[in-house]
Amino acid sequence: MNIAILGATGAVGQEFLSLFLRRKFPIGQLRLLASPRSAGSKLAFGEDLIPVEAVGPDSFEGVEIAFFSAGASRSREWLEPALRAGATVIDNSSAFRMDPSVPLVVPEINWDQVRPDTRLIANPNCTAAILCMALAPLRNLAPISRVIVSTYQSASGAGAAAMQELTDQTRAVLEGKDPEPKVLPHPYAFNLFSHNTPINPQGQNEEEAKVMEETRKILGQPDLGMNVTCVRVPILRAHSESVTIEFASNAPDLEAVHDALASFPGVRVVDDPLTNTFPMPISASGAEEVLVGRIRRDPSHPAAISLFICGDQLLKGAALNAVQIAERLLPVKSGR
Amino acid sequence: MNIAILGATGAVGQEFLSLFLRRKFPIGQLRLLASPRSAGSKLAFGEDLIPVEAVGPDSFEGVEIAFFSAGASRSREWLEPALRAGATVIDNSSAFRMDPSVPLVVPEINWDQVRPDTRLIANPNCTAAILCMALAPLRNLAPISRVIVSTYQSASGAGAAAMQELTDQTRAVLEGKDPEPKVLPHPYAFNLFSHNTPINPQGQNEEEAKVMEETRKILGQPDLGMNVTCVRVPILRAHSESVTIEFASNAPDLEAVHDALASFPGVRVVDDPLTNTFPMPISASGAEEVLVGRIRRDPSHPAAISLFICGDQLLKGAALNAVQIAERLLPVKSGR
Repeated sequence: MNIAILGATGAVGQEFLSLFLRRKFPIGQLRLLASPRSAGSKLAFGEDLIPVEAVGPDSFEGVEIAFFSAGASRSREWLEPALRAGATVIDNSSAFRMDPSVPLVVPEINWDQVRPDTRLIANPNCTAAILCMALAPLRNLAPISRVIVSTYQSASGAGAAAMQELTDQTRAVLEGKDPEPKVLPHPYAFNLFSHNTPINPQGQNEEEAKVMEETRKILGQPDLGMNVTCVRVPILRAHSESVTIEFASNAPDLEAVHDALASFPGVRVVDDPLTNTFPMPISASGAEEVLVGRIRRDPSHPAAISLFICGDQLLKGAALNAVQIAERLLPVKSGR
Repeated sequence: MNIAILGATGAVGQEFLSLFLRRKFPIGQLRLLASPRSAGSKLAFGEDLIPVEAVGPDSFEGVEIAFFSAGASRSREWLEPALRAGATVIDNSSAFRMDPSVPLVVPEINWDQVRPDTRLIANPNCTAAILCMALAPLRNLAPISRVIVSTYQSASGAGAAAMQELTDQTRAVLEGKDPEPKVLPHPYAFNLFSHNTPINPQGQNEEEAKVMEETRKILGQPDLGMNVTCVRVPILRAHSESVTIEFASNAPDLEAVHDALASFPGVRVVDDPLTNTFPMPISASGAEEVLVGRIRRDPSHPAAISLFICGDQLLKGAALNAVQIAERLLPVKSGR
């Protein structure tokens, strides 16, 4: 399969390369594309060093699947050239996610939204994708009416530069310095802050609005009640989410919840009260599964449960989900 | 006023000394008490160096107010000797908080629980005290029926050794090492974890149970619905809390919420959506006020709002609240 990655030098872009190797993705030609500013370098891919090319009108010639991960404006700019060249586009930006004609896909949950002639598939917001992995098995047990989420989001969601900033700032603070924030608007070392996206008139920041609307779209529940608070914490690459789930009538019993989660592909239950072992970012980092634990009844609501989720922001929150989409496209594409 | 501090060498103990100076607390004799293991050192208090004595049966002779901050078992051990010596005890441990005969006090909220003959006052759990500072002004506007809280708790809640562990581990990780956790059970550098206290049969850890029952007692609402998730984050000394508040009938309008919080003593509203300025641990650290922001309607419930709180765990969460209790005792004691 001939592949292109737009945004190859970013934090997500680099994960694609590792995933292709680890999952033995059948790569024919591999084109690494980036802005002219990032082009010129070479990236290791197994034994090979592949040059990063500046994206241009001819970049998508012969490409069968194009992964876009260079932000919404680049996605809008390069969608038409990629489609015209015959590629199917898997877009990791927010550009097309809420377009009713574009499927927003977590393969384990709503692959049925993809049709044989689908040429553009949107990859969800990281926090929404990770959340849906825990919600989908539960709404298969009983209808969910309301979800209340507080997040603990990592630096990687703001890209490789933010990860570097967290590391550099922390080192500087430990040396007694008072570093100036550059990539993110607030000091990040030993600090946390409300997600740094603009706030809408309803008081939600852009990230929270994305999680709300994308979760509803992925689950196919446009009326799902959602309350989301998005917070950045000084963690490198895994998001955590504290989640309370209200069911429409009765909550399923906890054993059924546990079983439904444990048997859902891509979820791993980590829930041992005796040893105080629950999902943590360091356990989720690098893991392909979304970790779920702290499964318990909500003492304040007769039909609600609470749980705690951790997922790798760069994997199920981004590159892995996109590669899983591509893997499901393989039989379709090779059947042409 | 003759004062003793039991647990003077701990993280909270040290804060008492700074607060006495900053708030010009009228100190007569000051006795610094600790376990025999910690005794022998000297602590700076203004110009003076005060020796730390091993606590013993005669330690409370002549003491008028004794601050206990050395854990629940030490509090149980030294309560009777202190009371017998004539001291009034302000206890920062969990030993007596839920004893129906002991007032659990946040002075701005329920000072009316203290009687002229009260000789033992419990200082609340840090997370509960900080939470109540935001809830009390709101339940003065309209009855609150349910509170859903996810916390972002700092190292200081586990003491000075945990703060040191966070710093040391972070430095080690930045040097490429893989340090062994000692004070806390899980790796803490660039990580977070469910609060490291035992889990009860209902699935709540001890910290969550404390926050639930203490909040109900402080607010005088034994039936308040509460759902609490306590999480430790790699922050040094301020706790943050993401809070959703359901009102019994209608939610007050947001302007009234804002005004009630802003005019409540000890609360500072930090809520500027235009500049994305909200409460952060680094702003709360060292501040005597509890910071409240992200005040907004809950889009998933007609009578609910959400907000975000940060408070210094060692100040309003511990030493400051205890000193404020002592300050209110001064006229009572000096009137004897």
